[in-house]
Amino acid sequence: MNTSAIFERIKAAAIEDWQRYVDHEFIRQMEAGTLAQAVFQQYLIQDYLFLIQYARAYALAIYKSPTLEDMQLAQGGLNAILGEMHLHIRLCEGWGLKKADLIAAPEHAATIAYTRYVLDCGQRGDLLDLHVALAPCMIGYAEIGRRLAPALAANPNHPYREWISEYASEGFQQAAQASINHMQQLADRALTEARFLDIVAIFSKASQLEADFWQMGFDLAREKN
Amino acid sequence: MNTSAIFERIKAAAIEDWQRYVDHEFIRQMEAGTLAQAVFQQYLIQDYLFLIQYARAYALAIYKSPTLEDMQLAQGGLNAILGEMHLHIRLCEGWGLKKADLIAAPEHAATIAYTRYVLDCGQRGDLLDLHVALAPCMIGYAEIGRRLAPALAANPNHPYREWISEYASEGFQQAAQASINHMQQLADRALTEARFLDIVAIFSKASQLEADFWQMGFDLAREKN
Amino acid sequence: MNTSAIFERIKAAAIEDWQRYVDHEFIRQMEAGTLAQAVFQQYLIQDYLFLIQYARAYALAIYKSPTLEDMQLAQGGLNAILGEMHLHIRLCEGWGLKKADLIAAPEHAATIAYTRYVLDCGQRGDLLDLHVALAPCMIGYAEIGRRLAPALAANPNHPYREWISEYASEGFQQAAQASINHMQQLADRALTEARFLDIVAIFSKASQLEADFWQMGFDLAREKN
Amino acid sequence: MNTSAIFERIKAAAIEDWQRYVDHEFIRQMEAGTLAQAVFQQYLIQDYLFLIQYARAYALAIYKSPTLEDMQLAQGGLNAILGEMHLHIRLCEGWGLKKADLIAAPEHAATIAYTRYVLDCGQRGDLLDLHVALAPCMIGYAEIGRRLAPALAANPNHPYREWISEYASEGFQQAAQASINHMQQLADRALTEARFLDIVAIFSKASQLEADFWQMGFDLAREKN
Repeated sequence: MNTSAIFERIKAAAIEDWQRYVDHEFIRQMEAGTLAQAVFQQYLIQDYLFLIQYARAYALAIYKSPTLEDMQLAQGGLNAILGEMHLHIRLCEGWGLKKADLIAAPEHAATIAYTRYVLDCGQRGDLLDLHVALAPCMIGYAEIGRRLAPALAANPNHPYREWISEYASEGFQQAAQASINHMQQLADRALTEARFLDIVAIFSKASQLEADFWQMGFDLAREKN
Repeated sequence: MNTSAIFERIKAAAIEDWQRYVDHEFIRQMEAGTLAQAVFQQYLIQDYLFLIQYARAYALAIYKSPTLEDMQLAQGGLNAILGEMHLHIRLCEGWGLKKADLIAAPEHAATIAYTRYVLDCGQRGDLLDLHVALAPCMIGYAEIGRRLAPALAANPNHPYREWISEYASEGFQQAAQASINHMQQLADRALTEARFLDIVAIFSKASQLEADFWQMGFDLAREKN
Repeated sequence: MNTSAIFERIKAAAIEDWQRYVDHEFIRQMEAGTLAQAVFQQYLIQDYLFLIQYARAYALAIYKSPTLEDMQLAQGGLNAILGEMHLHIRLCEGWGLKKADLIAAPEHAATIAYTRYVLDCGQRGDLLDLHVALAPCMIGYAEIGRRLAPALAANPNHPYREWISEYASEGFQQAAQASINHMQQLADRALTEARFLDIVAIFSKASQLEADFWQMGFDLAREKN
Repeated sequence: MNTSAIFERIKAAAIEDWQRYVDHEFIRQMEAGTLAQAVFQQYLIQDYLFLIQYARAYALAIYKSPTLEDMQLAQGGLNAILGEMHLHIRLCEGWGLKKADLIAAPEHAATIAYTRYVLDCGQRGDLLDLHVALAPCMIGYAEIGRRLAPALAANPNHPYREWISEYASEGFQQAAQASINHMQQLADRALTEARFLDIVAIFSKASQLEADFWQMGFDLAREKN
């Protein structure tokens, strides 16, 4: 099959779920700088718990890698995530959240649904299945970072500057592009037309669960009040 | 450690989450016979999708079994579930749901959260972790069956007779007791006091996700209207 | 790709390793009825230990199945294996081996290499990888059964009648054919040309490890003397 | 249970298998500097293939980790191994082996048996099972390094100086001690007396498979002549 630009092809096939994720109300309010701090804090706490599972997913990717090159690509992702957690703790502290609060927080059902779905895609299928389940996170955050970057220029006191800057950064954009390239390699190796709809289904579901993850921020903040 | 009656000890430690699950509004309305049919149907569709994952969890239990006896116990569970799916399809047909509807239904986030959490407990930990994650389903349904059985005697035209009868049946009660006994064996072998709170955390989380599963029936029925 | 007759295509690509396995000295001596009883006994003990792992591999196949139909096919295999173990114990008793001897026997390195290789192919890859790793056992034994059946007609007192009859039986032949058909379905869904050599590599390696398994019978019998 | 010095307790219970491994003829000849270069080369090629699987085992350890601290400990091991592979390639080049030779070499059955056994211990059981299966490699090589270090002082032209120095080095000794300490933590958390013999069985088997790995060097060198 012609798998050129497989990511674009998958995204086009799942475009509605993708849009609901990258254009969620959470992102719109963040762009406008109007997102309530309490919502963002709840998101941030769950995102910390998410990263632990996300690191496990990259470890699983190493385990499942058919080649040493695949292993090394996943190793880069794993080290980046486990390194990122220190940054995360610092970011949280800036918002008045202590490390002990993060660790003690119970995982929300939306966090569980998304992370365990990704891990299970990897255990049930092959490395391509796992990579596609992981894609909405890294590639979606990069798309959101690019889109929200102009809002920082427009507002010198943007309250979410640090978060937006991280995902708009050159380093993160390159990591997302590397992820797209790796998906292409994996698809060139293992994607048949017969699998295409199954792959799209994984991507759609992961995008839905990402949108649920944004929504969770609002829901948790409402419950806490 | 003294692991006698380990199930009772775990349940006592997680009693609030357990009560919210086995005494959920869904169960109260089912007992009274007032549960809206639309709610029950939505539950039933997701329960069909749940059973596929539940069968995978029993297959994982076979895979992880340290002894042939453990394998055979899990094999019994697996065969019961895959057999039960035929009954499930028949039950659904009685409620106007066709097999094609069941298979085509998208998995709800609550279904994904619960099932993938159980599977991940098994992959991450040992057979005891997996068994404890599985326990709320089988043992909880048996407790619910026992509790709701008198409602059938009181109301000859109870609309949920078939469902309640299944879980109140001698066969299901015995299977649940066998599951309790197997948990005891696994705990005798592998449970330290240092692990106890982690085991309770798995049981609590699985009970919470079961309660969310009942709630999903109401949520889905509301959305469909 | 044209995957018609995928099993024949894989076998042709791995024909040397396949021949060394199905035409091993162990099989030649068994056909002639000259295989030393001590060699056969050692093989039989290890084959019992092999079946436990083989059942785990079928459980893994259920776990990894993308469809309910795939699950049910693997379930049939699992139940056949766990059922077969009773026959195995009876066969062993006919050769003076008690169940306690079987269970207490240490797994030989050749048993470990073959079984854990198959299991790892499944965990690392997808269901096709696992199925191809499993194929030499079931399909090879069926080929051996067909080839050795005439030896039974020629020798009414053939010492290995029971063993040969099992694998030459209509039931076993049909199970092997079903396995070939299932491999075809899995290949139609997930086999690209880019994967073909990797699939052949798994099949070749599993065939080599099967040949090592026959050789182990001779080696163990020699050590025991 | 009293798990103080759990590694020493396990080693004592498996002392015969441990001695056959750390005091194998391969090690004696290496100490004396008389080990044939062809034997060492064959070992080195397989050890390269071994490291790929060993890295997968550490990735699995990250995946299975119950705490972030456990993840970080395994991450250190993973990065060390994947880094070590570059050193390995350089060492091989010094012995006239090119990277292409390493990658193209078929995995020997002894390499498969050992590595896939370790991986399966991890998938079947918990992190303690996996850690114990990994232990003979790292802790045994450190013991061998300490024992062989004096041979370097005695012979300025020792042909295996680079290899011995690596495992006698302060860095490797510390990593082995960290591994012993981590095993203690895992045992404090999850080891019951009822599991002790199963844990010893894993350690014994892994030690046997390590001894087979040394023997493989001799066997392969003989075959190649």
